[in-house]
Amino acid sequence: MSEATAVYRLLTIQSHVASGYVGNRAGTFPSQLLGWDVDAVNTVQFSNHTGYGRWGGLRFDAAHLADVFANMKKNGLLRHNRILTGYTPSPEALAAVEDLIRAERQKNSSLIYLLDPVMGDMDRGMYVSPDVLPIYRRMLHLSSIICPNQFEAQVLAGMDITSLDTMKAVLTKLHAEYGVPHVVITSLELPADDLAKIGAAVTLPDGAQPMLLVGSTWDAEKKSPRPWFLQFPSHGEYFSGVGDLFAALTLARFSETPDDLPEAARASYASYGTPAENECTLPIARAITLAVASLQHVLLRTHKTMVELGKEEGVDPFQPTHTASVEDRVKVMRMRELRIIQSAGDILHPTVHYRPQWMHHSA
Amino acid sequence: MSEATAVYRLLTIQSHVASGYVGNRAGTFPSQLLGWDVDAVNTVQFSNHTGYGRWGGLRFDAAHLADVFANMKKNGLLRHNRILTGYTPSPEALAAVEDLIRAERQKNSSLIYLLDPVMGDMDRGMYVSPDVLPIYRRMLHLSSIICPNQFEAQVLAGMDITSLDTMKAVLTKLHAEYGVPHVVITSLELPADDLAKIGAAVTLPDGAQPMLLVGSTWDAEKKSPRPWFLQFPSHGEYFSGVGDLFAALTLARFSETPDDLPEAARASYASYGTPAENECTLPIARAITLAVASLQHVLLRTHKTMVELGKEEGVDPFQPTHTASVEDRVKVMRMRELRIIQSAGDILHPTVHYRPQWMHHSA
Repeated sequence: MSEATAVYRLLTIQSHVASGYVGNRAGTFPSQLLGWDVDAVNTVQFSNHTGYGRWGGLRFDAAHLADVFANMKKNGLLRHNRILTGYTPSPEALAAVEDLIRAERQKNSSLIYLLDPVMGDMDRGMYVSPDVLPIYRRMLHLSSIICPNQFEAQVLAGMDITSLDTMKAVLTKLHAEYGVPHVVITSLELPADDLAKIGAAVTLPDGAQPMLLVGSTWDAEKKSPRPWFLQFPSHGEYFSGVGDLFAALTLARFSETPDDLPEAARASYASYGTPAENECTLPIARAITLAVASLQHVLLRTHKTMVELGKEEGVDPFQPTHTASVEDRVKVMRMRELRIIQSAGDILHPTVHYRPQWMHHSA
Repeated sequence: MSEATAVYRLLTIQSHVASGYVGNRAGTFPSQLLGWDVDAVNTVQFSNHTGYGRWGGLRFDAAHLADVFANMKKNGLLRHNRILTGYTPSPEALAAVEDLIRAERQKNSSLIYLLDPVMGDMDRGMYVSPDVLPIYRRMLHLSSIICPNQFEAQVLAGMDITSLDTMKAVLTKLHAEYGVPHVVITSLELPADDLAKIGAAVTLPDGAQPMLLVGSTWDAEKKSPRPWFLQFPSHGEYFSGVGDLFAALTLARFSETPDDLPEAARASYASYGTPAENECTLPIARAITLAVASLQHVLLRTHKTMVELGKEEGVDPFQPTHTASVEDRVKVMRMRELRIIQSAGDILHPTVHYRPQWMHHSA
């Protein structure tokens, strides 16, 4: 195989919105920019994301998805090194996706499958049908990487995370019982004394409260999780599609060896720089560090644009949308769309400010 | 308006295939790369393009498209500087697109609308319902640029092109009767003596037969077309999606003033270089010259990949597909998918080998 015929194919199965950046619309362009031949199966076609409060379009049913998958298979087009799945509208549609992933996993043991088990969050609880849970639990066994938030990790494991000990119990369960190689809990709340134990900060140098991301790779010999963490400023609370962009960047960047990455991703890996002391240098941690770094650029650019648009249009773009009028809510949602296109350079070559650390031994 | 809030929004309404590069899948990434915030309404979701001979998926009906458009409108998301339309599966769906374009044109007289009237070609004749023709004719009045091939130009004008005179009659009809400002006939066959009259070559320096593209902008004062032409090697005969990529690149590059282009497109405009003698320097000709230059890179890279894949897989990628077995046809079609992702650098910064010339006065 030559450079001309090298195969860097990624399949993503998520939502499509005509306008704005969530689901496949958040992940496809960055993955393409990083050199991936992205195949995209859309699970819905909506005018815009549902955070606007009103939208038009269709959720696609399981029969349509299965038909698309079946014909891709017939035509030899299921030949991906990577698969990404995110929000899927119904248990039936998710089951069709499960069938696909199961067949691909059986065919290709080196497939890297990132499962983003989109179900809910700590603020809103479950926002999809609870019938997806048993399906996601089965799909965990097929995954290479999962990136739940705290709520989703808890629901999948069936235990709450209130401390370091319960965090480790959840990680162990996802690794050992569900066979997930790499778990990434994208945001986690821990008591202040537990933060101190693992060597994490309670506040960032500028006084802001950091987000805590916890990663863990299963150590099969020691039969224990090897947890690490990454702290970075939170800019994401106003935005939709952040998790989708994060998942896509993580999958596009992750590789055990640089040769498994397309040239664009390989060439821009230098952005990572030199590891610090106590830094976790696992490939998954490095991928996530670059993903978070790119995301910070996108969020800061979006934030800046919101401030300027707010002035121009005389609307507070940071106002709570659940109490806003329908018209104000829509206006604010438009301002909050991620500035992904404008961030192409930063997606390829991010500046890394925040680095992953192993959790202290004492933890 | 600041750089952070500058508006470069492009709406594209075309096909979506899960795998491969036609329709929106051919045009979206290049337009995004050139800095456009691309909104995409998909008119179908298929597993792959229909040239494979088999596919799965759905054509979306007029009601779905109208629902998406209506909710985009309600949510203030119809605010584009550019619109691109291509293949639309049925007269009903096309009529829904027409309604949208008509409303947008009435709202925004500076809207740049590129209409690619996909209906057929000289080899195959009409491959869509003839009921789309009257709709396309109405839509011509709303367009800024159209890029039919010879067959489509003839069908729209209701006259054949067999000579310079009939070519001028067709151009005049499209400009004067249908009100199209810029006509681009993407491939045209003219008798050898007519080629000589306009200053065009019969063969390229390497002996290959060139493609002839003819552009024309209406001179409202003189009430006559101002035709120019561009010749370049044909590499496109094996590929699907070439016309879609060309249309997207043209729209992403076209601008009466550089300020109307996003930074990425503006910054890479230097690729155009210095005009030659007798060069047509109309903005539309410059845009098309850059589009053709990028396309040449994509086609040469795809051609090279086909040769290598053919060797690796022991299949002739250039074989005629209509006589091939179903399995061979599918295999060959996979090899012919455009190498768009791999050509990102060449899409941004193409090398210009072929330049547009005014047609000789004697013509």
